Amino acid sequence: MKLNSEEWFTEVYPDDGCALSLELSEKLHEEQTAWQKLEVYQTTGFGRLMLLDGCIMLTSRDNFIYHEMMTHPVLCMHPAPENVLIIGGGDCGCLREVLKYPSIKHVHQVDLDERVTWASMKYFPELCESNNDPRAELSYTDGVAFIEQAESASYDIIIVDSTDPVGQARRLYTEEFYRACYTGLSDNGILVAQSESPLFHKDLILSMRSRMADAGFNDTATLFFPQCTYPSGWWSASVAFKADRPSNYRSVDIETKYYNNAIHQAAQAMPQFMQDTDK
Amino acid sequence: MKLNSEEWFTEVYPDDGCALSLELSEKLHEEQTAWQKLEVYQTTGFGRLMLLDGCIMLTSRDNFIYHEMMTHPVLCMHPAPENVLIIGGGDCGCLREVLKYPSIKHVHQVDLDERVTWASMKYFPELCESNNDPRAELSYTDGVAFIEQAESASYDIIIVDSTDPVGQARRLYTEEFYRACYTGLSDNGILVAQSESPLFHKDLILSMRSRMADAGFNDTATLFFPQCTYPSGWWSASVAFKADRPSNYRSVDIETKYYNNAIHQAAQAMPQFMQDTDK
Repeated sequence: MKLNSEEWFTEVYPDDGCALSLELSEKLHEEQTAWQKLEVYQTTGFGRLMLLDGCIMLTSRDNFIYHEMMTHPVLCMHPAPENVLIIGGGDCGCLREVLKYPSIKHVHQVDLDERVTWASMKYFPELCESNNDPRAELSYTDGVAFIEQAESASYDIIIVDSTDPVGQARRLYTEEFYRACYTGLSDNGILVAQSESPLFHKDLILSMRSRMADAGFNDTATLFFPQCTYPSGWWSASVAFKADRPSNYRSVDIETKYYNNAIHQAAQAMPQFMQDTDK
Repeated sequence: MKLNSEEWFTEVYPDDGCALSLELSEKLHEEQTAWQKLEVYQTTGFGRLMLLDGCIMLTSRDNFIYHEMMTHPVLCMHPAPENVLIIGGGDCGCLREVLKYPSIKHVHQVDLDERVTWASMKYFPELCESNNDPRAELSYTDGVAFIEQAESASYDIIIVDSTDPVGQARRLYTEEFYRACYTGLSDNGILVAQSESPLFHKDLILSMRSRMADAGFNDTATLFFPQCTYPSGWWSASVAFKADRPSNYRSVDIETKYYNNAIHQAAQAMPQFMQDTDK
């Protein structure tokens, strides 16, 4: 079946010779923001779709896995998280998940592009339902400069919910940035950063973890989870611990769609092909 | 970027409004067999690609996850597997994995279409490297009739490595078929069947498990794993136990690329949205 390019959005992953297409029913928004091209579509199978510079950021249907896995594992590993910094994450999906925890006192979301949050409020209101929580603070500025200037030991958890390591976002994958996060974290602090596809970007994941270690973190881990609309359908988040990697975690007692206690453990299982190159 | 349909193969999943495309460099084979259209291509990013009736069966790059997850978990759960029946599986990838276990005395692979095995021997020789093992027997006949006529308690493990539940393969998803498998299995026997995408086919997975229970099996489970080139990039295998579900499993001590002891446990973690509908 040939795709009619007017009715389908296709994202090509040229390095891996594959492409994912979603069938569109309506264009809802398109603009060139100060930072990037922002588009929102209605799809036939995935609810709404947000693109940034032609890359899938999220769909209504499957974003729950990504947002839950970027937040709940580290929130349940930290003994008593109170202050959280989200770098990127302008769609507010991580913010919403973090604010589900009563222990949280303050979440600061720092994204470059205010228009992403505007589009999310308009087209993905379910992700923005906690934006007016008095514990939430939203800023629109450069996340790297922000953490470099932050007071030390300000945050229990830092979540890097960024785009791929190209352009502006490249700086979010450097040892220098991880060093600034290390300084900004409190003693039991945990950093979590999205780390691309285990199948397509194994070397990136391993190099992120060694840069995190080089930046001073005591231990690192990777979480694995499905993510249908990201390259290869399989995704990861890499985690760095300022103190020892916790052997226990608190049971989650909030409403989730993907994450639960069994998934918490399961996500940490490293496929053999990654262990074999991790030596 | 628009895909030129001459250089890309696209599989559309119309019920879910999405499509996966693989970039092709060469057509290696095309024929109409007695049962289906069989094509083999060289791709730019995924090695070789086999299609049956226009659906992706396997690629060189990512079939290892599927074949390992269809075999090793159940082989390591069974206390002492000796005799295995593979229904479908004409590409011989499951056969190869099963024969890695020294305890195995006989594996019978029963696929309708001899041409699939011919194509696999020619274009995926790595999957067929154990076809001449004296413990392997390959037959080309109807798997449903085969198991219905089999002597009772003949097999320790039955692996249903089938295509999607359409056409001929639909009969492999019925309670009647599962009942024949139950009879064909020995006392500690285990049935495992590929069960589609957790994201796209949740109801199928749940109905397969209830049909397995209705057929007499004592317990059921589902294994979850990534599979880039199948719909949604996330796949499953459902398992039925004739006796109690084993609480222990033997450590795997053979060479694998995805499966290991941690993955064995992890694959059994059920996402919350499936638990919520499993009541």
